[in-house]
Amino acid sequence: MRTRVTDMFGIEFPIFAFSHCRDVVAAVSRAGGMGVLGALYFTPEELETELKWIDDHVDGRPYGVDVVMPASYAGADLGVDSPQDLVARLQGMIPEGHRRFVDDLLAAHDVPPLGEDSDAGRVLLGWTDATARPQVEVALRHPIALLANALGPPPADIVELAHAHGVKVAALASTPRHAVKQVEVGVDVVVAQGTEAGGHTGEISTMVLVPQVVDAVDVPVLAAGGIGDGRQMAAGMALGAEGVWTGSIWLTVEEADTPEMAKRRILEATSRDTVRSRSWTGKPARLLKNEWTDAWESAESPGTLPMPLQFMLISDALRRIGRSDAAELATFPAGQIIGTMNQVRSARDVVFGMVEQYVEAMDRLERLTRD
Amino acid sequence: MRTRVTDMFGIEFPIFAFSHCRDVVAAVSRAGGMGVLGALYFTPEELETELKWIDDHVDGRPYGVDVVMPASYAGADLGVDSPQDLVARLQGMIPEGHRRFVDDLLAAHDVPPLGEDSDAGRVLLGWTDATARPQVEVALRHPIALLANALGPPPADIVELAHAHGVKVAALASTPRHAVKQVEVGVDVVVAQGTEAGGHTGEISTMVLVPQVVDAVDVPVLAAGGIGDGRQMAAGMALGAEGVWTGSIWLTVEEADTPEMAKRRILEATSRDTVRSRSWTGKPARLLKNEWTDAWESAESPGTLPMPLQFMLISDALRRIGRSDAAELATFPAGQIIGTMNQVRSARDVVFGMVEQYVEAMDRLERLTRD
Repeated sequence: MRTRVTDMFGIEFPIFAFSHCRDVVAAVSRAGGMGVLGALYFTPEELETELKWIDDHVDGRPYGVDVVMPASYAGADLGVDSPQDLVARLQGMIPEGHRRFVDDLLAAHDVPPLGEDSDAGRVLLGWTDATARPQVEVALRHPIALLANALGPPPADIVELAHAHGVKVAALASTPRHAVKQVEVGVDVVVAQGTEAGGHTGEISTMVLVPQVVDAVDVPVLAAGGIGDGRQMAAGMALGAEGVWTGSIWLTVEEADTPEMAKRRILEATSRDTVRSRSWTGKPARLLKNEWTDAWESAESPGTLPMPLQFMLISDALRRIGRSDAAELATFPAGQIIGTMNQVRSARDVVFGMVEQYVEAMDRLERLTRD
Repeated sequence: MRTRVTDMFGIEFPIFAFSHCRDVVAAVSRAGGMGVLGALYFTPEELETELKWIDDHVDGRPYGVDVVMPASYAGADLGVDSPQDLVARLQGMIPEGHRRFVDDLLAAHDVPPLGEDSDAGRVLLGWTDATARPQVEVALRHPIALLANALGPPPADIVELAHAHGVKVAALASTPRHAVKQVEVGVDVVVAQGTEAGGHTGEISTMVLVPQVVDAVDVPVLAAGGIGDGRQMAAGMALGAEGVWTGSIWLTVEEADTPEMAKRRILEATSRDTVRSRSWTGKPARLLKNEWTDAWESAESPGTLPMPLQFMLISDALRRIGRSDAAELATFPAGQIIGTMNQVRSARDVVFGMVEQYVEAMDRLERLTRD
């Protein structure tokens, strides 16, 4: 298989695997695809450790890093550079009624309080310019092949910096207009991500979005959202993409460090068990639908706060839930393909299985068409 | 091109075109696809006229009829057979507050009242067993090749009746579970319709749904939802479908009798200008998003009523809006592909353009794969 994307990165298969787990990233790259590590949850120091580990386990194959630099967020105009100061200022912007709603929800589900181990760095994560830039600096000290931005066009100076390091830049787009803006700031690869994707996502489906993005830009496009097997890969390529960007499918592979409870929920879920909700970060993201997401849609809900306030509001709650038995409240980003994920396989098997099924789908299509 | 579906119906291209306009149905069938007339808005007498016209203009090519026999609706258990009696009973079930909400909304937009030409048959449409059965009887007196049911599995006796007339039966499914149920009652073709489709639609995207349905049933599957060009057709086939079912794309063809205002709105719309809403029929349907759909989501909304009460409630309002200048309230079923519909072409050009682009997409895929 050969597209502009396989040429650009020297990879065998144009399969990009987004994961927060270094083992998955290295395994996919070693299998001939391209692993992309989500940096969001890591401090710069932790990210350094993760990337060092990947460098040692990727056998010289290319891999990427994904950061989140949203074009807009609450506090962006405060002029505060230090993450600690930013957190302090932002904490004051969270209404008391919202804190009470979260406390009451957890109390109703008998979720115990946390001990005294709260951590300011963890409430902000990499969701601001101030917290994502140090991640980029760490990433560029490693031999990464790709820097991806998950929420809109990255800042122009970050694109320049990446290019100066010989690193290609990708960005996720949920409308053709976003894609055009991204290419204008120098993005090399556009990931056209449909609404069925897990995590932050738009409204337009992959089927409808990908051809529109392909027609709108000259750079190569990856199809994302609902891509979990080789038929979906073939469909993405048929729509004009030159590769696929996958996420949810890696949550249940052997190598993934996904919490056991979450893995079990995913293996049991149908494709109707996700919902697009602002209850995680304040921007719409597709999550596992459960009593958490329902509560934020209920008549009692105070409504969600803008990014990054919403996650700051709920971060302690998520940790409390994670340590409790309240599985009914444990939500996390998940795409609609979780309905087809029913077994645990190795990342390598997933890559090879996808390619094999892609080739079968192509053979079938050729037979149908030539008859 | 050859699939089980082209063999089943003796058609050249496995392209199914759902339309309420007889001209479109006949034109698509003559071009080598298969037109399917939506019977919903027609009385049995009108349907007879429409089908007679199609018989005279389809050059002996196969065509189909689509009815709506929902598995569940308000009043299904009233035991009332006559549409007139059913309407009378159902009218009493519509709360005064809902009528007031609609009246106030129209007054706020200066929409004039109707004259005295209200018509009971029109408020119920073909959305009940009592109103759809006479349509089926009319349809089976014509040389139709396909009877499709738009909302779930058709009643088993209707399937038998169709088969006794040598007519194949299709049904739309938005989950793999629905598809299995449909095949159990004898459906010959399952239309796996993703959430991006116009009209009544589920939550799962076409990309995710089609492979699940293909794996769940043995009968041929048509991909529906987001199919408007040849790349999307190729994608649908790559997902395992043996043909495609299209709808929105025909709203703006030369032959379509779509009101001018609606045509203009569609040609201008982007793919973000639709929304899944219960405000048309009480069941979720993708509609053009505007002040009508917004109003039903607003804090003042009394909520929607179950099918068929919601359409009964709003049918006069829709006619008032249609006769007024209140374009901002004129909603109608529309899928996300309206964002790519920017010009008026003949139905024949759309069919041939889709096939040509399908072949191009296949050629491109083969080059990418074999390199």
